[in-house]
Amino acid sequence: MKILIVGLGLIGGSYCKAISGYTDNEVYGLDTNEDVIKKALNEGCISGEASADEFDSFDMVIVALHPIPAEKFMINNMSAFKKGCILTDVCGIKGDMSERLTIAAEKEGVHYVGTHPMAGKEHFGYDYSDGSLFIGANFIVAITEKTHKPSVLTIEKLAKKMGFHHIVETTPHDHDSVIAYTSQLAHVVSSAYVKSPTMQKELGFSAGSFKDMTRTATLNESMWTSLFLSNRECLTFEIDELIRHLQEYRDAIAENDAVTLQELLRVGRVLKEKNIEERTKERE
Amino acid sequence: MKILIVGLGLIGGSYCKAISGYTDNEVYGLDTNEDVIKKALNEGCISGEASADEFDSFDMVIVALHPIPAEKFMINNMSAFKKGCILTDVCGIKGDMSERLTIAAEKEGVHYVGTHPMAGKEHFGYDYSDGSLFIGANFIVAITEKTHKPSVLTIEKLAKKMGFHHIVETTPHDHDSVIAYTSQLAHVVSSAYVKSPTMQKELGFSAGSFKDMTRTATLNESMWTSLFLSNRECLTFEIDELIRHLQEYRDAIAENDAVTLQELLRVGRVLKEKNIEERTKERE
Repeated sequence: MKILIVGLGLIGGSYCKAISGYTDNEVYGLDTNEDVIKKALNEGCISGEASADEFDSFDMVIVALHPIPAEKFMINNMSAFKKGCILTDVCGIKGDMSERLTIAAEKEGVHYVGTHPMAGKEHFGYDYSDGSLFIGANFIVAITEKTHKPSVLTIEKLAKKMGFHHIVETTPHDHDSVIAYTSQLAHVVSSAYVKSPTMQKELGFSAGSFKDMTRTATLNESMWTSLFLSNRECLTFEIDELIRHLQEYRDAIAENDAVTLQELLRVGRVLKEKNIEERTKERE
Repeated sequence: MKILIVGLGLIGGSYCKAISGYTDNEVYGLDTNEDVIKKALNEGCISGEASADEFDSFDMVIVALHPIPAEKFMINNMSAFKKGCILTDVCGIKGDMSERLTIAAEKEGVHYVGTHPMAGKEHFGYDYSDGSLFIGANFIVAITEKTHKPSVLTIEKLAKKMGFHHIVETTPHDHDSVIAYTSQLAHVVSSAYVKSPTMQKELGFSAGSFKDMTRTATLNESMWTSLFLSNRECLTFEIDELIRHLQEYRDAIAENDAVTLQELLRVGRVLKEKNIEERTKERE
């Protein structure tokens, strides 16, 4: 296939490197930053830069922009893509956008499939991109009733070749509700965690657990604001759930209630152990 | 030195391996579990098992038990240790215990110094012990007005040889207030995080951030209950702080307030970036 990747940031750049590195497809790039295009050409992970009048030459277009510009780009250029081509995005939110894009695409004879590669880093931009980023990672495909099934299979085959391990098909709304917990809540916690006044004294006093808790606090606030606000209901639910549980530990500690506290910790341990067991089974 | 390590769990076992592996000291072990002693002897990380009537032959006694049994063991055996020997523990809580033990030890001519190796794993027991566990880690020494300074220097020299990178001297109470944030709060969050009902759907939907958030939920609930309750005031303060900050994000998200949300995330990013910068400087 001739594949166009739009937006060569951390994820788009990593897609260029993974697809050109591990598959036989031809990869072209598009980015508003000319330096990034030059770097990608020099590193050989794209065969060329695409221009808007060539959009109809691509069999697959992968839009790796933030959610709002991604939807805008797809809607604005829908009639310029090749009839029968596959159009996909890598946005961390699916919801109503997937339905809107599926309908708009089919009107132009284009097959839209929303996906979400579950990989990332606490940094952003092409310079952090890495062709091995997806090895062993999860790949989510958000499928609506109108989604073109053969295009889903083509995308999943490509994802496997890029190194993704586990491919999950779900609905856009189920995607958003689970992602609110597994990814968005984690980013909220990291960002909130660093705000204790004690943070100013942590040097020399911490180990792995502090590092893990605060790793993603360096997030790109513009993108994450957009992701969080597109998923308000689910994310609010998860923050409320976490606060409610934290309050239980807090009260047991403040009341010096060893029995309750130990039981709270035991239940958490058992839940996590069960989760590790299920993951191990799934990997076998 | 002839060193006795009491309690060959994750930390005690790792001490045996690091001291016997990286230093010229002679290491002996004591554990209620005979199988663990046999394993340590077979692995060559102890030269022998110590018995209570030989306590006075050791130049240093390192007690690697949970806080309550650790203090009990030290108090009960104080008169049995060699005059002038160094007595230390590795408990994650220092507070009043350090004062009590320093006084009780000096009465018997023993030099007590409380320490806290900032390294661990989400598992416990000798089988997970590892001689390289402390390489690059922080080592905290809790010093009171009555602490015997030459013994502090001896312990710090040993810690350096074991691989610890950064040695911090602090007071027992400052130790507890910072540890509440860098370590205890992180364990509370992990344990609370796994309790969302969405946890049951996470398989295939998560990446590094979920893994980081929940890693320490497999903690040993008996030890952590004891650590948390010994540090009630500081830990309650940190949980309250985190809840208060989480609530700010929650409200901005629920109210669809992009300006406030983006500012909350920006402040978190800047705090974390400053922290990374300070850590980098400190390592240079």
